[in-house]
Amino acid sequence: MTTPISIVTLGVENLERSRKFYEQGLGWPVSSDSGDEIVFINLPGTILALYPYDDLAEETGLPSTRGLGFGGVTLAQNFKSKEEVDQVMAQAKSVGALILTPPVDRHWGGYSGYFADPDGYPWEIAWGPDFEYNEDGSLKLRE
Amino acid sequence: MTTPISIVTLGVENLERSRKFYEQGLGWPVSSDSGDEIVFINLPGTILALYPYDDLAEETGLPSTRGLGFGGVTLAQNFKSKEEVDQVMAQAKSVGALILTPPVDRHWGGYSGYFADPDGYPWEIAWGPDFEYNEDGSLKLRE
Repeated sequence: MTTPISIVTLGVENLERSRKFYEQGLGWPVSSDSGDEIVFINLPGTILALYPYDDLAEETGLPSTRGLGFGGVTLAQNFKSKEEVDQVMAQAKSVGALILTPPVDRHWGGYSGYFADPDGYPWEIAWGPDFEYNEDGSLKLRE
Repeated sequence: MTTPISIVTLGVENLERSRKFYEQGLGWPVSSDSGDEIVFINLPGTILALYPYDDLAEETGLPSTRGLGFGGVTLAQNFKSKEEVDQVMAQAKSVGALILTPPVDRHWGGYSGYFADPDGYPWEIAWGPDFEYNEDGSLKLRE
């Protein structure tokens, strides 16, 4: 079996602000394995981690592009109806997320919008007519 | 239950080059749901998608920072021994990945290295003394 993506780590400017956005704003569960320098959000499957941007950049050895724009990565959550997409986007907006694009019909047949978290990381909230799901809520693709 | 991260999408300069790196280089399974404009890699849980950078940037509405450095996101795969970490890093290197940092002992007690994929996206390959795993290979954190 292929190894899953264990952790997606976002380099953040203000750990407390980001934790508050995900934990209190979106209602996501923070693991007690978190500490002063890292926050782990216990999503099913791949864990989401929050870590200071400069420390993370230093670990990778790559130069910082903080605040300059799109970092090249998007994270998506897929839902089972257009209504859920609208609800999640509205919730994100209500807790201070910047709406990058409101939900629209996409050329591939789906419906999705993008919001940015406090550091500008883009989340796509999506519904598609053909999406199938596993029991744990993960997306089921063909082999 | 909290919704998982369904898909992590990497904006890539050359879709064919990136597909080759992940499919033939690392041996990861490409889904037949893939097409000419998007590649889906069927990892357990969160899917990895490859999509042209400029199109992805345009979808988010954010300005491009392509080629400028660290985009702020790291992806990690966690393994059950230091030896596995060394093996995966060596495999990545052998198929053209740039080694950003060779595996070293980390201050948090683990052992990890970073390599960059063809577009510079940093992957951390890690082992930790306290990591526990679920049946599907995903990381198990405390509540």
